[in-house]
Amino acid sequence: MNSSPQELLTQMVERSNIAPKRLLAPGPNEAQLALIFSAAAQAPDHGRIQPWRFVLVPQQRRADLGNAFVQALKTRDAHASATQLEAAYDKAFRSPCLMLAVLKDQASEPHIATAERLISLGCAIQNMLLMAHSQGLGSGITSGQAMNAESLRALFSLQAHEQGVCFLNFGTIGAKKPARGRPDADSLVSSL
Amino acid sequence: MNSSPQELLTQMVERSNIAPKRLLAPGPNEAQLALIFSAAAQAPDHGRIQPWRFVLVPQQRRADLGNAFVQALKTRDAHASATQLEAAYDKAFRSPCLMLAVLKDQASEPHIATAERLISLGCAIQNMLLMAHSQGLGSGITSGQAMNAESLRALFSLQAHEQGVCFLNFGTIGAKKPARGRPDADSLVSSL
Repeated sequence: MNSSPQELLTQMVERSNIAPKRLLAPGPNEAQLALIFSAAAQAPDHGRIQPWRFVLVPQQRRADLGNAFVQALKTRDAHASATQLEAAYDKAFRSPCLMLAVLKDQASEPHIATAERLISLGCAIQNMLLMAHSQGLGSGITSGQAMNAESLRALFSLQAHEQGVCFLNFGTIGAKKPARGRPDADSLVSSL
Repeated sequence: MNSSPQELLTQMVERSNIAPKRLLAPGPNEAQLALIFSAAAQAPDHGRIQPWRFVLVPQQRRADLGNAFVQALKTRDAHASATQLEAAYDKAFRSPCLMLAVLKDQASEPHIATAERLISLGCAIQNMLLMAHSQGLGSGITSGQAMNAESLRALFSLQAHEQGVCFLNFGTIGAKKPARGRPDADSLVSSL
């Protein structure tokens, strides 16, 4: 049975970005995570080229990610303070379920533009966020200046045609914050 | 009331891209279209910059769009045949509800990368596709080499920092085609 349009809209309205520090254990269990990835797999994919993939960062690899963040900051700012470097390291340890969203931008037949590939990835991500919410889990998207640092690319073994676009975080919502406002839909639309 | 995760996944699985020539009248009525845009407005928007907008192309402006497609093809290929030019023109008349998705990429505070803006637009589009499906409507995404032709940019009065990313089509599904397969979710995921 399908949910009604109003039920669907309610789910979309209720979902909001949760900062990783407010995403606590437990993260999604195996069945919940499988549904999140199944949701991703339903995204539009012009030309059937599968232009993206996700790489999970399990707990035992968080220190490696932290070190990659630290290296990225050092490369970006040789004068970064110890406090700043520690903060960069700590970012790798938030949220029980963390993954990198990777865009695959190699030549394909048919030719699909980079923008379209990113649209497909965005569709996949929205499906994942909605599926997490539907299972009572919180989610958050993170990014930053380290996204395409060499240290990060090396850690994730990204190929030349790949780029890290953002991190996705999933977990149990800790303290709630008030819902943020959304734009009036009318402000997004005009007509020729 | 929220739909269950399985109901939500079913909606995602059932939705598939419908070619514009198979999207027939009636298109979404005013209330249905309002829900589609409300769904779009629930997309993640890092920094609250509203990095995209949609421009409807009503029936009485389809000829203008057809002419822009023809001009784009002539510019791209001075030897385009009369048949090709006619096909380009005809593309503007498919599907009862047609709109251009426009990415807004001007400087913002905080700075948000182009890739992130496209992810936000992708999230909005997926919400729209799901909301259309939930209302019994079909949808299709189209694009092509004319997307950023000067004739198209002029018709839509795009500013220098804007780009047309794709067209969205909504309508009543005509003849059904067999559902296409989706990738096994496992093929999209790995772990460090």
